[in-house]
Amino acid sequence: MSQLSCHLQLPPTSYDIVIRCGLLQEEAFLRKQLLALASRFVLIADEKTASLYGKALQKILGEKTLLLSFPGGEVNKTRATKEHLEDRLLEQGWGSDTCILALGGGVVTDLAGFVAATYCRGVPFVTIPTSLMAMIDASLGGKTGVNTSYGKNMIGCVYQPKLVLIDPCLVSSLPLRELRNGIVEIIKHGLIADASLFSYLDTHVDTLLSLDPETLSYVISESCRIKITLVEQGPKRTLLNFGHTVGHALEKLTDYTLPHGEAVAIGILVESHMALQMGLLQQKVFEKMQNLLARYGLPLKLPKRFSYAACTEAMQLDKKSLLGKPRFVLLEEMGSAKSCDGAYCASVEESVLETALTWMNDALCCN
Amino acid sequence: MSQLSCHLQLPPTSYDIVIRCGLLQEEAFLRKQLLALASRFVLIADEKTASLYGKALQKILGEKTLLLSFPGGEVNKTRATKEHLEDRLLEQGWGSDTCILALGGGVVTDLAGFVAATYCRGVPFVTIPTSLMAMIDASLGGKTGVNTSYGKNMIGCVYQPKLVLIDPCLVSSLPLRELRNGIVEIIKHGLIADASLFSYLDTHVDTLLSLDPETLSYVISESCRIKITLVEQGPKRTLLNFGHTVGHALEKLTDYTLPHGEAVAIGILVESHMALQMGLLQQKVFEKMQNLLARYGLPLKLPKRFSYAACTEAMQLDKKSLLGKPRFVLLEEMGSAKSCDGAYCASVEESVLETALTWMNDALCCN
Repeated sequence: MSQLSCHLQLPPTSYDIVIRCGLLQEEAFLRKQLLALASRFVLIADEKTASLYGKALQKILGEKTLLLSFPGGEVNKTRATKEHLEDRLLEQGWGSDTCILALGGGVVTDLAGFVAATYCRGVPFVTIPTSLMAMIDASLGGKTGVNTSYGKNMIGCVYQPKLVLIDPCLVSSLPLRELRNGIVEIIKHGLIADASLFSYLDTHVDTLLSLDPETLSYVISESCRIKITLVEQGPKRTLLNFGHTVGHALEKLTDYTLPHGEAVAIGILVESHMALQMGLLQQKVFEKMQNLLARYGLPLKLPKRFSYAACTEAMQLDKKSLLGKPRFVLLEEMGSAKSCDGAYCASVEESVLETALTWMNDALCCN
Repeated sequence: MSQLSCHLQLPPTSYDIVIRCGLLQEEAFLRKQLLALASRFVLIADEKTASLYGKALQKILGEKTLLLSFPGGEVNKTRATKEHLEDRLLEQGWGSDTCILALGGGVVTDLAGFVAATYCRGVPFVTIPTSLMAMIDASLGGKTGVNTSYGKNMIGCVYQPKLVLIDPCLVSSLPLRELRNGIVEIIKHGLIADASLFSYLDTHVDTLLSLDPETLSYVISESCRIKITLVEQGPKRTLLNFGHTVGHALEKLTDYTLPHGEAVAIGILVESHMALQMGLLQQKVFEKMQNLLARYGLPLKLPKRFSYAACTEAMQLDKKSLLGKPRFVLLEEMGSAKSCDGAYCASVEESVLETALTWMNDALCCN
């Protein structure tokens, strides 16, 4: 008999997140930053971001840059689109020395990141988020993936970018509904990790909704700081999933017609209702977050009622589930969530879940 | 302007490689080892290994074990097979607490490993190699992937198993040609890292080819030790690619009708011919390896002549290529290869590559 052991310690990695209005026009800066990573580039964008920013960026980076686009939307974030993009790269002979740049919202950064993670077993990857949601969430932290009919992001990798380039002023081109969707994740960052960010959001509703550059840059920067800090702490990144067990289930139950941010906003309330029932969270904090979400114009409306059975079935494949039982991030107070034995999510009594879902149907549905 | 940095240091990981004849019959041991990793299992096998070992293993692991099989062969190691397996898992509600066991040769461990790496962004993974090649190469080190029409393993991940279970005596069920293919990689391990393993192979041709359990266990164990040591050293794992720049090109040029081991055996000679021309390697070492490969019955025959242009085009997408220029591991002496500025492969003068390929066509082709 023989027994061997393989011991692996990967070297530490780090990457910068540059946040500045007008960044995408800084030709010299972009060239310097990107040419330090690779000598040839493939820009992946959706059709909209390709025409808005892709061609200009391609011009800045020069000849050895390919611009590939695909039709946007969660419905196209699939294994089929991934395969199509890979085949374009393969047939043109792009090798492992290619750097992939993701230019777009969360759909683009998730999909292009997954392509980068698996092309030639991994090539350098840079994110250039154009939606508020992608700026403070999808573009950093390394989660990549595609959807299947069985759920969102069921197939994917954790793969870190080499650089994140954020131009906060790009959000001025977003529809208001999409902007509000991004704000939900910023509120979430405040709730799980930083009460002062929540307060800032509370006192800056008007300046933020009017896209004041300074306010925008501040909340994006703070939000990124919180996200990075949690990602760096490993297991604690689970906190970022606050509101998402219920949120993802609602997206699935509405065939993704309910936007991610709106679904997460409802998820935040439903999961906080559980914490409320369990005596972890105070009623006044619950009301505060409900009010703030409403002041930012989030609809907080279900399109129809969803049965307990349908909801729990939709949660079954949630990646935090243990033996098919869903788990939730449970808030204890503004800026802090419950941890137990090193885990930052927990299952709840069936009655607690049922009561929270009944509250959701009664309070948020329908006309 | 704001600039943040994300610093990541993943915790060290380690895994055991257990090597013992009869291991797959040790019910109590298998249950103990595997139930420590997860409570439910999906066994992925090809049709042959599913019927040879899969059902017995499924019985040992109990109810919560699914056996999934697919038609074997490199031609089925594709994105389409991966998607098919994923959909089977998704539709049956297997979650992120599922452990995937790969039971088979390199095709199975590469494909199942890639499924494990990306299912729910990564689930625990165990390899149970059944071919000699998989025991000493594909089952450990973490390389996973699938083929495309543009080349082998072009899409994949590096993803480490949690455990490797090797029963050397399983190789008795292999056809002789497949056994010889595995021996090529063991010879390669001797050449790049351990002259004493090469000597042992030189003095044990008959006992190894007659599958003496002690000889088999020894060469498998030594080969795994060498592979692990190189993998642990990061960049040095490139040495494992000795013979593979040319080998992979020959596989592609023959539409994968030339088996991997035979292609690598020829690749070892062609790449050593380059080292010979460059004055790095002595003629007598070159002859020694040529003799040993022949004594193990490797055919060392090209099916037809391949032009310089066809060969270099086939190498263009090799993952070691830099700006489309192929690179090779260059042997300096028995057990040691050239390193330069921390890289363990290098490009060569066009004339050197051309002369080596001419030698290949003249010496190894055709009838």
